[in-house]
Amino acid sequence: MNEQLASWNDGPAKQAIIDFIHRTTTPGDGYLDPAERIATFDNDGTMWIEQPLPVQLDFIFRALAAAAQKDSALAAQQPYKAILEQDKVFFADVGQQKPEAIMALEEALARNWHGSKPSDFDAEVLSYLQGTKSEKFDKPYTGLVYKPMLELFELLRENEFRVFVCSGGGRDFMRVIAESAWGINKEDVIGTAAQYEYKGGELYRSDQVLGGIALGPGKPEHIFATAGRLPAFAGGNADVDIEMLECAKFSILVVHDDDEREFAYTAGAEKSVAAAEQQGWTLVSVKNDWKVVF
Amino acid sequence: MNEQLASWNDGPAKQAIIDFIHRTTTPGDGYLDPAERIATFDNDGTMWIEQPLPVQLDFIFRALAAAAQKDSALAAQQPYKAILEQDKVFFADVGQQKPEAIMALEEALARNWHGSKPSDFDAEVLSYLQGTKSEKFDKPYTGLVYKPMLELFELLRENEFRVFVCSGGGRDFMRVIAESAWGINKEDVIGTAAQYEYKGGELYRSDQVLGGIALGPGKPEHIFATAGRLPAFAGGNADVDIEMLECAKFSILVVHDDDEREFAYTAGAEKSVAAAEQQGWTLVSVKNDWKVVF
Repeated sequence: MNEQLASWNDGPAKQAIIDFIHRTTTPGDGYLDPAERIATFDNDGTMWIEQPLPVQLDFIFRALAAAAQKDSALAAQQPYKAILEQDKVFFADVGQQKPEAIMALEEALARNWHGSKPSDFDAEVLSYLQGTKSEKFDKPYTGLVYKPMLELFELLRENEFRVFVCSGGGRDFMRVIAESAWGINKEDVIGTAAQYEYKGGELYRSDQVLGGIALGPGKPEHIFATAGRLPAFAGGNADVDIEMLECAKFSILVVHDDDEREFAYTAGAEKSVAAAEQQGWTLVSVKNDWKVVF
Repeated sequence: MNEQLASWNDGPAKQAIIDFIHRTTTPGDGYLDPAERIATFDNDGTMWIEQPLPVQLDFIFRALAAAAQKDSALAAQQPYKAILEQDKVFFADVGQQKPEAIMALEEALARNWHGSKPSDFDAEVLSYLQGTKSEKFDKPYTGLVYKPMLELFELLRENEFRVFVCSGGGRDFMRVIAESAWGINKEDVIGTAAQYEYKGGELYRSDQVLGGIALGPGKPEHIFATAGRLPAFAGGNADVDIEMLECAKFSILVVHDDDEREFAYTAGAEKSVAAAEQQGWTLVSVKNDWKVVF
C-alpha cells in the first residue's frame, strides 16, 4: 500500500493515514462498512493553493469590481467599495475566511449572478481560469493542485471510500474544474451555493443561498445534507474546518510551512493547530511530509 | 445485454431502454461521457408501491395523529384536524401529491421533528417500517420494491451511470432504507428535506425546509443542486414528475394498469401520460412490460 502514496515521505502522517485505512477496511475493531466510507476535504489550502488569496475570491473580486465600475451606486457600497479601494483590512478578513466578510461577499455574488444560467456561469469561470496565473509560480491555478492529495484520493477510492470536497467557497465554481483537475464528480462537490429555479425548461440562479455558508458548523451541516452521514475521514487546513475535522473519525490538518515550494503562513489556522493537538488529528507538514507539492 | 433485464418482457419499452444505454455508451452520435451519466428516479409509484397512500405519508399521518392526540391545540389545526377526522378530500389531495396539501404536511412534519437528531428519526422510521404492512399484499413495504426497476438500476450501474432517487417525499425517510432495499447510497437520495444545525458536536433538525419541496419544478432544482447537472435518464410515474422527465435526455413513465399484481390507477398521472406522448417518453406498462412486479 505504501508505494501508492508515492509523493509522501515516510513518517508519522503517512503512517497514520495508512493505518486508518487499513483498520477501517479490515474485519475487526474499527472496520467500516463501505457505505460509511465518506471522506471530505476542504478545497483552498487543502487541495490547491490559497495564497495570496483563495482562487475563487480572486474570481469574485474581479467580477464584482467589473460590476461596480459599470454602476456607481454599487461602487459606493460594501463589499464593492473595499474591493475597488483595495482595502487591506477587508482583504485580510477575507483571506482568513472571517464569516462576516465572506457573508458580505456571498450576498454580492448572489446579486451579481442572479438570473444567470449554469452554462453562463461555467463559461465565466473557465474564461477566468484560462486567463489567470499564480504570480509566484507563473502557472494556471489548475496546475497548482497538491499531488500528494490527489494520491490520497486515489488510495481512498481504491479502498471504497467516496471522496467529496467541502469548501466554504462556491459549489458551482468548483464544479467547473472538479472532474478534470481533481477527479471528483460534480455530485461530490459540496460548497456554498445559490438556489436555482427551474422555469420553462431552464435553470436560473436565484439570489438565495441554499443551506447557508459552508464554513465552520456549516461544513458538517452541508456534508450531512449531501452525504446523509458525517465523514469517516476529513482533511482541512484552517479554523473554519474545525467542525468538519471534529465530526470525522480520522482527520488530517495540512500545515503550510514551506515558503520555498509553496507558502508559509499560519493566519486563519491558529485555532485549528491547537485543536489538532487536543483532538489527536494528524498534522501534515507540507515541508516534511510531502516529497513533491504539485 | 438483454438477459440483464430478466423481469422485463421483450417489447418496445425494454428495447428503448437498451437502445438508449447502448447509444450513450458507444462512441458516436449520442455518446455520453461517463461523468454525464446521471439517472434519476422518482420513489413512490416508480420504485415501490404508493397505494392506497405513499408509504411516507402513512408514516407522517401516524406520527402527526399521535402528536395531535397529545395536544388539543394541534388537533384543531390543519393538517392534524383532517388526519384525525380522516377527511377524504384532504387524503385525495395528498394521494395525488397536490402541492398545497404536501406543503401543509411538510410544515407539520418540520414542526413535529424540530430539534430531533438523525439517529432518533432513523429509529422511528425503522420501527414504523418493521411494524407496518401493505394490507393488499400482507408484506412489509420494503418487500414491495419493483424488481424490474432494481434490474434497471443494475444495468445502468454496469454502464457507468450513477443512480439517484429523487422524490417529493422525505429525504431522511428514504435514506433509512435506500442502501438495504434499493442498493442506493444515502448520498444519492434526493428528496424534500429539513435543514439541520450542527451544535456541540451533534446535528439537530431545524424547522426550515432546505431548497423547497422536491415536486414539479422542485425536482430539476434539487437534482441540479445535488448532482451538478440535469439527468441523462429519468423515470417517474406522476404529474409531479413531469419537469424531471422533460429535463432528461431519455425518460420512462411507469403506467399502473395491473390491478391484479399491483394496483390500477390514473389519478395524479393524467397530464404525465399526455406529456409522454408529446415528448416521446417511453411508457412502461406494469401489466405488459413487467414479467414480475416484486
